[in-house]
Amino acid sequence: MSQFDEILRELKTLDLSKMYRNDFFLTWDKTDQEIAGVFAVADALRDLRERNISTRIFDSGLGISLFRDNSTRTRFSFASACNLLGLEVQDLDEGKSQIAHGETVRETANMISFMADVIGIRDDMYIGKGHTYMQAVADAVEEGFQDGVLEQRPTLVNLQCDIDHPTQVMADTLHLIHHFGGVDQLRGKKVAMTWAYSPSYGKPLSVPQGVIGLMTRFGMDVVLAHPEGYEIMPEVEEVARANAQRSGGSYRRVTSMDEAFEGADIVYPKSWAPYAAMEKRTDLYAQGDTAGIQALERELLAQNAQHKDWSCTEARMARTKAGKALYLHCLPADITGVSCQEGEVDASVFDRYRVPLYKEASYKPYVIAAMILLAQCEHPVEMLRELEKRGRVRKKL
Amino acid sequence: MSQFDEILRELKTLDLSKMYRNDFFLTWDKTDQEIAGVFAVADALRDLRERNISTRIFDSGLGISLFRDNSTRTRFSFASACNLLGLEVQDLDEGKSQIAHGETVRETANMISFMADVIGIRDDMYIGKGHTYMQAVADAVEEGFQDGVLEQRPTLVNLQCDIDHPTQVMADTLHLIHHFGGVDQLRGKKVAMTWAYSPSYGKPLSVPQGVIGLMTRFGMDVVLAHPEGYEIMPEVEEVARANAQRSGGSYRRVTSMDEAFEGADIVYPKSWAPYAAMEKRTDLYAQGDTAGIQALERELLAQNAQHKDWSCTEARMARTKAGKALYLHCLPADITGVSCQEGEVDASVFDRYRVPLYKEASYKPYVIAAMILLAQCEHPVEMLRELEKRGRVRKKL
Amino acid sequence: MSQFDEILRELKTLDLSKMYRNDFFLTWDKTDQEIAGVFAVADALRDLRERNISTRIFDSGLGISLFRDNSTRTRFSFASACNLLGLEVQDLDEGKSQIAHGETVRETANMISFMADVIGIRDDMYIGKGHTYMQAVADAVEEGFQDGVLEQRPTLVNLQCDIDHPTQVMADTLHLIHHFGGVDQLRGKKVAMTWAYSPSYGKPLSVPQGVIGLMTRFGMDVVLAHPEGYEIMPEVEEVARANAQRSGGSYRRVTSMDEAFEGADIVYPKSWAPYAAMEKRTDLYAQGDTAGIQALERELLAQNAQHKDWSCTEARMARTKAGKALYLHCLPADITGVSCQEGEVDASVFDRYRVPLYKEASYKPYVIAAMILLAQCEHPVEMLRELEKRGRVRKKL
Repeated sequence: MSQFDEILRELKTLDLSKMYRNDFFLTWDKTDQEIAGVFAVADALRDLRERNISTRIFDSGLGISLFRDNSTRTRFSFASACNLLGLEVQDLDEGKSQIAHGETVRETANMISFMADVIGIRDDMYIGKGHTYMQAVADAVEEGFQDGVLEQRPTLVNLQCDIDHPTQVMADTLHLIHHFGGVDQLRGKKVAMTWAYSPSYGKPLSVPQGVIGLMTRFGMDVVLAHPEGYEIMPEVEEVARANAQRSGGSYRRVTSMDEAFEGADIVYPKSWAPYAAMEKRTDLYAQGDTAGIQALERELLAQNAQHKDWSCTEARMARTKAGKALYLHCLPADITGVSCQEGEVDASVFDRYRVPLYKEASYKPYVIAAMILLAQCEHPVEMLRELEKRGRVRKKL
Repeated sequence: MSQFDEILRELKTLDLSKMYRNDFFLTWDKTDQEIAGVFAVADALRDLRERNISTRIFDSGLGISLFRDNSTRTRFSFASACNLLGLEVQDLDEGKSQIAHGETVRETANMISFMADVIGIRDDMYIGKGHTYMQAVADAVEEGFQDGVLEQRPTLVNLQCDIDHPTQVMADTLHLIHHFGGVDQLRGKKVAMTWAYSPSYGKPLSVPQGVIGLMTRFGMDVVLAHPEGYEIMPEVEEVARANAQRSGGSYRRVTSMDEAFEGADIVYPKSWAPYAAMEKRTDLYAQGDTAGIQALERELLAQNAQHKDWSCTEARMARTKAGKALYLHCLPADITGVSCQEGEVDASVFDRYRVPLYKEASYKPYVIAAMILLAQCEHPVEMLRELEKRGRVRKKL
Repeated sequence: MSQFDEILRELKTLDLSKMYRNDFFLTWDKTDQEIAGVFAVADALRDLRERNISTRIFDSGLGISLFRDNSTRTRFSFASACNLLGLEVQDLDEGKSQIAHGETVRETANMISFMADVIGIRDDMYIGKGHTYMQAVADAVEEGFQDGVLEQRPTLVNLQCDIDHPTQVMADTLHLIHHFGGVDQLRGKKVAMTWAYSPSYGKPLSVPQGVIGLMTRFGMDVVLAHPEGYEIMPEVEEVARANAQRSGGSYRRVTSMDEAFEGADIVYPKSWAPYAAMEKRTDLYAQGDTAGIQALERELLAQNAQHKDWSCTEARMARTKAGKALYLHCLPADITGVSCQEGEVDASVFDRYRVPLYKEASYKPYVIAAMILLAQCEHPVEMLRELEKRGRVRKKL
């Protein structure tokens, strides 16, 4: 049986019916079968592309992207996913639009969606804002579709919000699945999601939150480590605890990087800003308090600087399982002596994991494409089978 | 007989031969049959898309967009129209180009057009400039085509100039046709195109001018209302008068919003800047007179503020036909208590018409696509019939 | 025998095997047969397009563009070439990306390339930087492909570096081939690549270098003329000398524009900055020495102003072969009395050559597409034959 046939056989066993015409906001909105479905469809699309079989399901249509923060890899991953399925990307650049001109979210959402099949949004800067904004957009296009304003219901894909970064952490996890040889192999593995020192500040919480919210589903022992004062959203810790209990894994939080690394199979050392500070910053921005923002920045950098020892050094890597834990990062990393004087990770550690890190990133376009396909196709198994049967070449040889 | 067949039957009766290889600048350049042709083709394309039939007539090709003013909905409408026909949008961002570098319009027009099938331009800020610029671009590509520089003749579509906004007002009118059940049902309807107060200033004249220049063609009673000092271009009023006489409708100008609303079937309350002030501003910009521009801005805002009672209130709506006139707007509107303290329209009025307003906007991509198709296809009826027969699915199901 | 068949017959005689999975940096990296191959494929693609036959070889895929300098014609040429072959352009805008954020070239190159088939880069501002950067990107994607990170190896196309501007000068040369009736007709023709005065400064050296590095291959008598102090890279002069010797043409450098124009068949008068000054500027930028940069700018403008007599006037054109040399320019030109008071060329000369100048530019999209096709297709003759046989229409008629 071919790899593709095996994927489809697994896919057939899953109940994915509620993904149709639905959005993708947070991984914990989705059932275990739905998460498995995204992985399987991502693998199936990759398998087809590797066999030079076109996976275009759209002959025309737009994929709208809205980035409220700079982005390279997520921007290109979204563009790649849309292109893979046959959608043309149209970027909503708020600077060039009339949105400042007093237009409501509901209105903009409808105005850009007359021929949109997907809307991808990155909005991760302000606590309590990004997810809410995405929901408002999704509600607006659902209403527009129900009212007959829109001929089709565009799918909303969260390309990173203040709470979760589902396309990233599902790509991370799919990388683990392939690295360790199957989702069952993740059971019992220890993963250390730890804070790490960086000379920058204000990095989003969505990656650590996304990781503990997703990886606790597979029976892994998930440890979150950070210095005092770098707490994440308590609601997400609740999700992690419940997941772990259900999956037969564990979730705990420690304040020692060494403890987290001890015997770990997987490490994910990464800087983020304290939740409370991010909330404060959101308020300061809302008040337009520039002096306050600058004071907070200085304060946060000083706070970071007290924890320069939170770094993924060779010494720490030696503490992991056989000294060979798989190192993960969403990239770009702050590499000591390369991109900064002192950073998240030693250059020698980073260099050793370069190839697996790039492979980790390579799953993101397929994860996004899978989310879109499952929201747009009522019968994904039949669709994938039909794509293989059609056998249209992606690139003429 | 299907809706599509009916559309094609009507289309067959129209002489559209002069639209082939031609541009779309102003609605009043076009015959009544040509205007009817755009509506019919727009309806036909929509019908095909709603039946999931691909309307790609291009396998490759570029649609060039040039926006000299911020835009969301027109930008996305143009992108949607191009995508619907199979063209990839390439934006000419003058900031990123070498145009400031002393390059002529003729040269730029040719340089971007080697593989362009359409050029869409928005240039509405300066009286006497936008339309002239578009004509220069169209002349340049015509010459390039005749000289053998260009292998194909790109179609120029006016996405809003200083004189007319044809894609907007044709979308508005197509909405009226569908709302009232046919173009014949527009005969005798009273439409009030009226100025309304807004705390912003300097809005283009192209919408009111476009409305009176087009809607007078269908036997409607078109009333233009504005305070003294908010005159529009006299040439366009001449067009409106001549249209009204020919079509058996009427055109008149009043200085009372109440009078315009009285018994109206349709109202279109919208702010614009006085023609004379726009001319003055154009001169000040040409002279680089920043102080003069700021003084003019203050003057215009003060002048606007004298007419805060020009608002589409519930009380005024009650004066319309059965209190239920159809409210139109090109969006975004300045909504009292929502996007500004005092604006063009009461929030309750706007809210009541939200769905029809969004539907009004939904016609714009199809109107633009129809303009392109009629300029690019010598035999539009046969083309549409062939698209239906080909039956290529837009989105695999 | 059709024109297309003749092109394919010639193409069959050429050894193009090393172009497959290779990049295009500098024309002198390529054999004469490979240069001839690019011309032939460009002509073949143009012939197909003129017969309304689609040349899409990709059903999906991305063409990444990275412009580190403003650009109109090269940007649109690249977009056109990608579109012609079926690739969607995705612009890597470094301002919108996280690249400033300490990311390495190797990492970025891989992150944007998961579904990229081509990467086009313009990086011409700093001596010693552009070419080196492009090589780093190409090495990174080659490594990524070998490591299994990338499923395909994107082709790197040099859209202008500090050393060469291959897409420009190959378009210039293809124009000459068609103008004079075949590559054999270039033998013995005198081409004057000369410096010309412009009130701007700091223009790249890549065009004069590219011209002498390419046109010396066809048995032409290539004369480079410039005032003392406007020397180009000596390595490229070495290339030109070796080419000339091999091809039976000649290369020499003179310090008189009149001497260069005397009896010339082709003239290419164009401003550039002295190599030594460009090196100095690169160092000043590296040191962030703003005062030094401004001082250098004043110095260069003053130096330029001493050579205002280096202009392509009617009097000089009269010295050329029968007074009718073919005038070339990469555009935009600095035209005396049009884009500046005193510039590279008289308005009357420029006007007389406008149509051939635009035709010259029209070859660039095809040259770029040919470079891509030859890097992506192992069997280009069979591919082109198959495209003709497939006969898919580009635009439905």
